Amino acid sequence: MSSYHAPTDEMMFLLQQVFDAPSVWQTLPALADNIDIDTAAAILEEAAKINGELVAPLNRTGDEQGVRFTGGQVFTPDGYRDAYRQYAEGGWVGLCGEPEFGGMGMPKMLGVLVDELGYSANNAFNLYGSLTAGAALCIHAHGDDELKQRFLPGLYSGEWAGAMDMTEPQAGSDLRYISTKAEPQADGSYSISGSKIFITGGDHDLTANIIHLVLAKIAGSDGISLFVVPKIKVDAAGNCTEANGVSAGAIEHKMGLKASATCVMNYDNAEGFLVGRANRGLVCMFTMMNYERLSIGIQGLGSAQAAYRMAADYAKERLQGSDSSNAQQQAPIIVHGDVRRMLLNCRCLTDAGRALAVFTGLQLDLAKYSQDEAQKAYATKLAALLTPVTKAFLTDRGLECAISAQQVFGGHGYIRETGIEQWVRDTRIAQIYEGTNGIQAIDFLGRKLVADRLVTITELFNQLSLQLAQSSDVPSHLIAQQQTMQDDFLAAMHEVMAAKDDDSNLINAVAVDALDAFGYLMCGYFWLLMQQTAKQQQSTLPEAWVTGKSQLAEYYFARLAPRFAMHLVSVRAGSTATMQVDIAAF
Amino acid sequence: MSSYHAPTDEMMFLLQQVFDAPSVWQTLPALADNIDIDTAAAILEEAAKINGELVAPLNRTGDEQGVRFTGGQVFTPDGYRDAYRQYAEGGWVGLCGEPEFGGMGMPKMLGVLVDELGYSANNAFNLYGSLTAGAALCIHAHGDDELKQRFLPGLYSGEWAGAMDMTEPQAGSDLRYISTKAEPQADGSYSISGSKIFITGGDHDLTANIIHLVLAKIAGSDGISLFVVPKIKVDAAGNCTEANGVSAGAIEHKMGLKASATCVMNYDNAEGFLVGRANRGLVCMFTMMNYERLSIGIQGLGSAQAAYRMAADYAKERLQGSDSSNAQQQAPIIVHGDVRRMLLNCRCLTDAGRALAVFTGLQLDLAKYSQDEAQKAYATKLAALLTPVTKAFLTDRGLECAISAQQVFGGHGYIRETGIEQWVRDTRIAQIYEGTNGIQAIDFLGRKLVADRLVTITELFNQLSLQLAQSSDVPSHLIAQQQTMQDDFLAAMHEVMAAKDDDSNLINAVAVDALDAFGYLMCGYFWLLMQQTAKQQQSTLPEAWVTGKSQLAEYYFARLAPRFAMHLVSVRAGSTATMQVDIAAF
Repeated sequence: MSSYHAPTDEMMFLLQQVFDAPSVWQTLPALADNIDIDTAAAILEEAAKINGELVAPLNRTGDEQGVRFTGGQVFTPDGYRDAYRQYAEGGWVGLCGEPEFGGMGMPKMLGVLVDELGYSANNAFNLYGSLTAGAALCIHAHGDDELKQRFLPGLYSGEWAGAMDMTEPQAGSDLRYISTKAEPQADGSYSISGSKIFITGGDHDLTANIIHLVLAKIAGSDGISLFVVPKIKVDAAGNCTEANGVSAGAIEHKMGLKASATCVMNYDNAEGFLVGRANRGLVCMFTMMNYERLSIGIQGLGSAQAAYRMAADYAKERLQGSDSSNAQQQAPIIVHGDVRRMLLNCRCLTDAGRALAVFTGLQLDLAKYSQDEAQKAYATKLAALLTPVTKAFLTDRGLECAISAQQVFGGHGYIRETGIEQWVRDTRIAQIYEGTNGIQAIDFLGRKLVADRLVTITELFNQLSLQLAQSSDVPSHLIAQQQTMQDDFLAAMHEVMAAKDDDSNLINAVAVDALDAFGYLMCGYFWLLMQQTAKQQQSTLPEAWVTGKSQLAEYYFARLAPRFAMHLVSVRAGSTATMQVDIAAF
Repeated sequence: MSSYHAPTDEMMFLLQQVFDAPSVWQTLPALADNIDIDTAAAILEEAAKINGELVAPLNRTGDEQGVRFTGGQVFTPDGYRDAYRQYAEGGWVGLCGEPEFGGMGMPKMLGVLVDELGYSANNAFNLYGSLTAGAALCIHAHGDDELKQRFLPGLYSGEWAGAMDMTEPQAGSDLRYISTKAEPQADGSYSISGSKIFITGGDHDLTANIIHLVLAKIAGSDGISLFVVPKIKVDAAGNCTEANGVSAGAIEHKMGLKASATCVMNYDNAEGFLVGRANRGLVCMFTMMNYERLSIGIQGLGSAQAAYRMAADYAKERLQGSDSSNAQQQAPIIVHGDVRRMLLNCRCLTDAGRALAVFTGLQLDLAKYSQDEAQKAYATKLAALLTPVTKAFLTDRGLECAISAQQVFGGHGYIRETGIEQWVRDTRIAQIYEGTNGIQAIDFLGRKLVADRLVTITELFNQLSLQLAQSSDVPSHLIAQQQTMQDDFLAAMHEVMAAKDDDSNLINAVAVDALDAFGYLMCGYFWLLMQQTAKQQQSTLPEAWVTGKSQLAEYYFARLAPRFAMHLVSVRAGSTATMQVDIAAF
């Protein structure tokens, strides 16, 4: 039933050869003793095993059953509870968490790959752990020692789960208008009251407790603060005591992701603890949100990978039509150019998307662990620049690939039986939640490029050019094409920067095209880097691997890179045509 | 609940002003007495009424309930049976059918618009009538007088329904391998045995009889023949008599379109009547298939229209974020450039898509009714060229628009409550059935362009250029941009034609990009034509209408037309990068 396949060979190629993780880890004392390439390989194999054997088989049944809401409680589909317990016991929730509180301290470069293996098995299942790890990251970054001691061990061990409680009906993308209130109490805690919607994993039966990170306004203030609000109260020693005033009021019925509980949450004088400073809640929550944004990008990537694998396998088996060289005999549909086009689109976007994810993980590792202050500062800014791109670009491509893969199945793709249509429904949400992809693009163009005065991206492009110039292993016309993309992109961004003061709508109107252009440009770079690496290390790699990387790079530049220019033309069109239409005309 | 909106103003603008249907109809004797512009307007208003009041309210409940398969019979959701009876009694099934057999003889230019009104109310419901009209068209074109007398009145009146029975598990896109058999009987009929899958409307409870057009092989022959196989036998006088050996074996569970019955059909010595000549069944069936291809294109168009309308209405009401001119006050999200981008993409593609549908309808009317042989021959070829384009381009854009519209809803777009997600699920099938969009593209590029040696398309482009050159009402830079697209496209097609003899994979590998490029080029033409028409007739049109058409044309050329060049670059990349990858590497 399950067609789960873990591309651990591709993952190891990226880790070991393309990004030379072992050398990176050696430079980072916190990682040097903790991880080596053999350990990384073993972790990936183990992740492939548990996701393939335990998690993937629950994907379809979870979609069929969905979560249930009964007696004020949410119940996950059959098998989820047991599987999650085993998953947590394997240490997967705390994989990249702080060793001091029970985490495994693994690098994010590896973490993103484990995340892909999880999402490509089961979107809904993997979310629960992702939210837990993100909540822990946020508490670790902004909570005081008491909060860390109280909550982190239970989160990293996976005995408890995390949730991110932000949205209210009137406050979705615009959080200024949240109305959940926090009343200061004599003991230093707060009493939280209000309600929220669209809370993923807001309630469920997988864990003994759920630790909510809740945005609320302290009584008398219009600023937004962040609170830890556990479902079950936790004493200072970290033991669960009695029910807190937090409960699910309903669950949503959705297009997909049906095994993930999307809850209306009610807070009725719930006990909460301030995280970080009062009125600085958004800044704190962004630590979790950025974690989840990368994770959701990887949801898109994992979905693309899973869908591609199913479609490629189907295309090799399904006989229909003939090879152009022999019209009399039926051939597998993979001989047809158009079927190949759909599959190669998926493949090239997925492989390059994985490289983007690992590259982003690398920046996060350098930002966290580097002892070189300049390197740390640059990596921090670069990770911030890349995060909205991984979220939006990988989820947009995730849906595109799922749809292309479904198309390969023909009529069989539309019926539930083959399972491919579930990937389309499940991954669709990834473009919406954790900030819509439009919001990501505005963050990217407005904050990460323009507000940065293009400093970080210019440094990045210099770094990319240097990397490619070092080598004669890549066809020069492809390097030239890549360099042109970088030059054109930077020129266009300078134009945006020059024009934006006189045009307050410009960034909003062209941001998505700017992000997409950048995404295709980065994929171009990663294809050249993969091709270059494979050629440089051809003595240790199978010949088919080296040839394959070159051919896929050629395909990428021939058939997908042309999208870059289209998006850039659209950026350069500016905002006038978009903004001048009267509202009444819509 | 239902947000149904009929854009009859846009439809009348196209009919009356852009394509000057009244003048066309005056030149066609068969239509001249049958239709005038007031009648057309009245028909559109009536179609808007019945679809808005009767059909649209069943869309959501039909999705929730789906069709049921019980006791070997298919039952449609509550309300469908009554609604279909009223719909049929209104004459809608036979709208463009032959008056001699009870049809209303209306032009296809009008028929495509009525079809859009139907699909934008309810994809699933409208299919039943569309298949019926297509079956009637096929029987009228290829059946003998006795078959016509026997079957057409029941089909045109809507008392009976039609179905198109082609696909078998081993024979989807590749019909050579069908195994359904037809044994000649002494009375001249055939005994049909076998089974088929994915038969839309194969069984249901809407009508007293279902007339199947079935592809089968006559015993001893490998050719494919076409048969009329009624669910209930019909005597020579047209009365239903006894059950024929045709039954549904199962229904499929699908991603969407749940109120449409997708059936496994079994034929057990069923009585069938040969349509047209033996072994020429595919040619005959193509009459129905081309009808359905256009109809399915309009399914995409109707879905885009419905989704756009919902999203535009939501964007005007939903407060979130602020206008860039006043950061303190919440504003409707339609002030945001990125929301406008999504909506304007939908709007521009939908309005131009509607023009493409009417233009195609015009060619079909000229092909059928013109008394000028040269005009008739050209229109016939042009309709054949446009049919795969309307099918593929309008359904690809239909899904794109439904997804963009869903994105405008943010998180509310993913939950079932708002209804927008159903449009995504329902319209997805339109890219697959009636020949996948890949198949359409190969038909377009291989048969309709290359095999035609570019004769028809060259004539079309000359006609378009002439139309635009006549006017100073369109900005000259847009006309130049349009002319460049046409020149580039034709040049690229000449390159394909020159290269295809040495590269048997070329057409298959680049067909989808060629079709898309052509689609965007045609939309460019239609936007200029609409802008031109509005300006030329500005004395009789509201000022906002004239302004609106110009602004939408500008938006189209600024933000959507750049896709043309991207697709053309991809065409010119040829097949090498696509074909050289080893199957084992996928």
